[in-house]
Amino acid sequence: MIRELILKNRSYRRFYQSEKISELQLRNWVDLARNSASARNAQSLKYILSTDDSFNAKIFELLAWAGYLTTWPGPEEGERPSAYIVVLNDTLIAGNYFCDDGIAMQSILLGATEDGFGGCIIHSVNRNKLHELLDLSEQYEILYVLALGKPKETVVLDEIKDGNIKYWRDENQVHHVPKRALDEIILEAK
Amino acid sequence: MIRELILKNRSYRRFYQSEKISELQLRNWVDLARNSASARNAQSLKYILSTDDSFNAKIFELLAWAGYLTTWPGPEEGERPSAYIVVLNDTLIAGNYFCDDGIAMQSILLGATEDGFGGCIIHSVNRNKLHELLDLSEQYEILYVLALGKPKETVVLDEIKDGNIKYWRDENQVHHVPKRALDEIILEAK
Repeated sequence: MIRELILKNRSYRRFYQSEKISELQLRNWVDLARNSASARNAQSLKYILSTDDSFNAKIFELLAWAGYLTTWPGPEEGERPSAYIVVLNDTLIAGNYFCDDGIAMQSILLGATEDGFGGCIIHSVNRNKLHELLDLSEQYEILYVLALGKPKETVVLDEIKDGNIKYWRDENQVHHVPKRALDEIILEAK
Repeated sequence: MIRELILKNRSYRRFYQSEKISELQLRNWVDLARNSASARNAQSLKYILSTDDSFNAKIFELLAWAGYLTTWPGPEEGERPSAYIVVLNDTLIAGNYFCDDGIAMQSILLGATEDGFGGCIIHSVNRNKLHELLDLSEQYEILYVLALGKPKETVVLDEIKDGNIKYWRDENQVHHVPKRALDEIILEAK
């Protein structure tokens, strides 16, 4: 069953924007991250939630979408995320959060997927402006923004061809993601 | 159900060493990582598997266990991991793997947990010696070692007290992990 959930948990970038996500849902998903492993148990990651339409619109302006889809400016109005989780590191707790960020966001996204939603981890963020918008003190470092919503696109995993790892969209707007074969990523078994 | 699985997926450091893990099981869990998100879809993480007793013993010598349990040298013979997954970054593919490491290891550990096993992400690794033992070329950077086995300890989550985040073992060898409250890690909701 975890396999099905992981396969269903794709990086979605187009959503049914009118399908709302409640603050309680976001809290439940962050609670999954809270209960996941943390390096040295430092638990330095902190979160800001947004379910508010006008605040979502302000966050949206500070994100860049899908680097390989160079002609696509990102989701249009009506297909934008209905919620965001800004993932921060509290540098007063720990300068180095090791791999806590990936663990936490995978837990959050698996929770969202199970509840019928989905999202995308966004690293291309205007951090200075978002820091200002969120009125954050200097101790908080913005790591990622999780964009969340009800997925409105089909994502398909393909075998990699000619070493090309760039995702792409076909004429039906299906999003294709080439994946390396298992025997390419497992170097050796002792 | 993902919540139950995440709660069951604790960092275990003592195992029923005689309970073997097969190479196929490790491959299935790595396949979960393969099908998880990757920054820019670069998929630069590579894996080396070990299920062999004598090779496991060599890996064990290069690990340090549970930094806060200062008087505990790590699991004794009979309680050691029955398998390892060494997580590498292929620097010829990408210098920066962003949060792929945490995503991948969370997927692997959730797969192991679902199958009745468990493990621990180890960062305190003698990387030079492990690099030599694995006869790796320079392109591979050792990130973490996942220690895996059939858990032989009870891990309990506690509320944090007086800001102390150090895990500890009680007189019954129950491992306690203090976790920050949800309202401490969610700074704000818009």
